[in-house]
Amino acid sequence: MIELIGSLAGVLTTVSFFPQVFKTIKTKSAGDFSPVWIVMMTTGVFFWMVYGYYINSMPVFIANVVTLVCMCMLTWIKFFSGKQNTSVE
Amino acid sequence: MIELIGSLAGVLTTVSFFPQVFKTIKTKSAGDFSPVWIVMMTTGVFFWMVYGYYINSMPVFIANVVTLVCMCMLTWIKFFSGKQNTSVE
Repeated sequence: MIELIGSLAGVLTTVSFFPQVFKTIKTKSAGDFSPVWIVMMTTGVFFWMVYGYYINSMPVFIANVVTLVCMCMLTWIKFFSGKQNTSVE
Repeated sequence: MIELIGSLAGVLTTVSFFPQVFKTIKTKSAGDFSPVWIVMMTTGVFFWMVYGYYINSMPVFIANVVTLVCMCMLTWIKFFSGKQNTSVE
């Protein structure tokens, strides 16, 4: 039961992030993401994944594996590819 | 040690969300947030909080209490207050 709640939580927060990722891949533009946000979020999600693994929580682990893949794509587009529109704010 | 990794994860992903929340409170404008995203994210964060409580994970619980407070503020500004700029996309 509690794993179901965790899985539901993981699906909701992870899937809610997908439209943003799809949009970024489609436009190949990540200029509007703050680099600080990308670095903090990617590092944080990586630590969540490690934490989920060690506490044996499948929902925490899997949700953060998926989010980490998304963050890696955003990072790639932001720093190594994509349009170089360095919008401020 | 593992609680430290979880806490670090929680601090990073939660704090990375703050600038967005501050900006929304300051501008009182949440028109650019998709209502679907707000509802999914708020529900998901609520379930994470419940899940963190039941698996006795302080990092999961506390990070999601803080994020839930932020999401409630965005929800309030989006649906009950703030400028009614219903931008599409």
